[in-house]
Amino acid sequence: MGSRLTARYRVRGEASTIEHRAFCIALEQSVEVTLEAVHSPTILSEIVGRVDEIEDRGDGWFDVAIGLATATIGADAGQLVNMLFGNSSMQDDVHLVDIEIPDELCAAFGGPRQGSDALRRRVGARGRALTASALKPQGLAAFELAALAFQLASGGADFVKDDHGIADQAYSPFAERVRACAAATRKGAAIAGHTTRYVPSLSGAFQDLERQVALARDEGIDTIMVAPMIIGLSNFQALRQSYPDLAFLAHPAMIGAARIAPLVHAKLFRLLGADAFIFPSYGGRFGYSTQTCAGMADALRAPWKTLEACLPVPAGGMTLDRVPEILDFYGPESMLLIGGSLLASPRGTLTAETGKFVRAVAEHDYGSKQ
Amino acid sequence: MGSRLTARYRVRGEASTIEHRAFCIALEQSVEVTLEAVHSPTILSEIVGRVDEIEDRGDGWFDVAIGLATATIGADAGQLVNMLFGNSSMQDDVHLVDIEIPDELCAAFGGPRQGSDALRRRVGARGRALTASALKPQGLAAFELAALAFQLASGGADFVKDDHGIADQAYSPFAERVRACAAATRKGAAIAGHTTRYVPSLSGAFQDLERQVALARDEGIDTIMVAPMIIGLSNFQALRQSYPDLAFLAHPAMIGAARIAPLVHAKLFRLLGADAFIFPSYGGRFGYSTQTCAGMADALRAPWKTLEACLPVPAGGMTLDRVPEILDFYGPESMLLIGGSLLASPRGTLTAETGKFVRAVAEHDYGSKQ
Repeated sequence: MGSRLTARYRVRGEASTIEHRAFCIALEQSVEVTLEAVHSPTILSEIVGRVDEIEDRGDGWFDVAIGLATATIGADAGQLVNMLFGNSSMQDDVHLVDIEIPDELCAAFGGPRQGSDALRRRVGARGRALTASALKPQGLAAFELAALAFQLASGGADFVKDDHGIADQAYSPFAERVRACAAATRKGAAIAGHTTRYVPSLSGAFQDLERQVALARDEGIDTIMVAPMIIGLSNFQALRQSYPDLAFLAHPAMIGAARIAPLVHAKLFRLLGADAFIFPSYGGRFGYSTQTCAGMADALRAPWKTLEACLPVPAGGMTLDRVPEILDFYGPESMLLIGGSLLASPRGTLTAETGKFVRAVAEHDYGSKQ
Repeated sequence: MGSRLTARYRVRGEASTIEHRAFCIALEQSVEVTLEAVHSPTILSEIVGRVDEIEDRGDGWFDVAIGLATATIGADAGQLVNMLFGNSSMQDDVHLVDIEIPDELCAAFGGPRQGSDALRRRVGARGRALTASALKPQGLAAFELAALAFQLASGGADFVKDDHGIADQAYSPFAERVRACAAATRKGAAIAGHTTRYVPSLSGAFQDLERQVALARDEGIDTIMVAPMIIGLSNFQALRQSYPDLAFLAHPAMIGAARIAPLVHAKLFRLLGADAFIFPSYGGRFGYSTQTCAGMADALRAPWKTLEACLPVPAGGMTLDRVPEILDFYGPESMLLIGGSLLASPRGTLTAETGKFVRAVAEHDYGSKQ
């Protein structure tokens, strides 16, 4: 038996149906199909999510512990969070409230390479809390941020970090800022007679992060800050592996990324260059309303400055018999995605069922909607 | 005057205080300090967020439109979302409900390089919706996924994509799967006499994504899928720039990433290797309770398998006069981060105020808590 990690979800529900709901979450976060589409005994026993515990928390809330196969994750941080909450993040009756990690995943990810003792050693602090401050506001030039760093260091702070919004802006380019702030921090620290570490904030895609680390190292910097939810968990993981000698401060920006409307993601993904965007349609497993879906489709397709249209791909529990209704709703400028319900066709009928799907789309009469 | 983008937030509040609340959000998403810490007239006029509109939506909800300076973003996707919602994501009375993008950001990001017409041309479909299906469940071997791809293609589907949970697992490694599924799709499509595109799902850090694109291209693949919230928006942007000839399907995994408990992020960031984690403490600008904060500090510091401790860094509106209370709460195994309130010291007093902060931490008597 392969090892499992445990995801603990807090789920709104009723006592009479919570077992079924828990099982649906276990499917969603593992095989993402109904059991009819699982034909392999090994997948049933080794891969399908397992409901380990259901606890009634009162007031219509239940804690559901689900064992997810470690084998589905490998050792990629993005895939870890994908399997923990990727699809369920879109179901608003489910919260991810805790995780338990098996030994092999723990070893694979490895945790802090430096840890809190090494942070203490960097600034020679024992038996007391460490001190830190931030360089801001946004908009200051490199030399102005450096002047602040000088004062904070000469006051004796242990760590002086960039504000998390300070990136590589034209008014304070990363290279210029890091050189100026590192030098100012050294000067201030010499006056205070105390070691102060300047902690630059990194941003951008992976090659930007690598370039920034190289610039920081040239200044003797050994402690940096990143916002893992902004740079991407997999990038954070890769940085950690590439630079085990650096200490990393994690910033929480976007960890509450809670309440971004689906509409905003539709716009963001089109802006960034998605040619098509798969989203959970109304009437499927996810709670999006027809209004939300129409708004997203419109945001993807409607003329928007100079941008190409991005094709809406309604999905998430679509079925063959709903094709006409879905097409009437989204029109021909769309892509229909039917996965699980096709794959749940009786053995030997998948090609024929796909053919039905294809014909239903090809032959649909859009009528007055055209 | 530099251009601005508009973020529209839905905010819970009261008519008597909504103007102040809106202004606080404008500060949080731009300079992240109070106006006392902004000494530059240029930053006041060009960088500080501007409340453009407040609309009463009824039932205690208001829509607040805030103009954010484009200059704070540059042209990095991570930084875009950071400035839109980075810190406010942690305030649970604020939702990001819409965005408006100025022309220069639109040009900088550039949107779809292929667009929906190019997707149609890939499969020769005109005047109808496109069709797609997915390869799953998780746990199938490459040859089993390929058998499904063959059937879906011979049924005539336009696009056959990997399920978003299918990554580079030991039971179906990316390279083997992509070769098998691409070949099976070509065979099935030949039988159907229709062009079907196999769409592999990419995952991992940037160098993994690049390696996977290279493998896909070797199979003649010109359409791929990514989950931008999993791989990171900046990575998505970088992929788009590096491979303008590919069409990208965006998957929504984690877009509702809504309801992940702060505790889970504390555990995740430690697991992935953060040496210290900055988080909004109780009693500051963010709504975290003492219980949440104690739970996070514990998750970061308590023995956890083989992992080093990760240092808790309470922040987010801390002040000098609260140092004793905060230290009593978190104890010496912590780092105190005071940014804005130090920077709001009267001109010429920053070094001295920093010195007070440093001494307050150094001289704190932990009493019976030690």
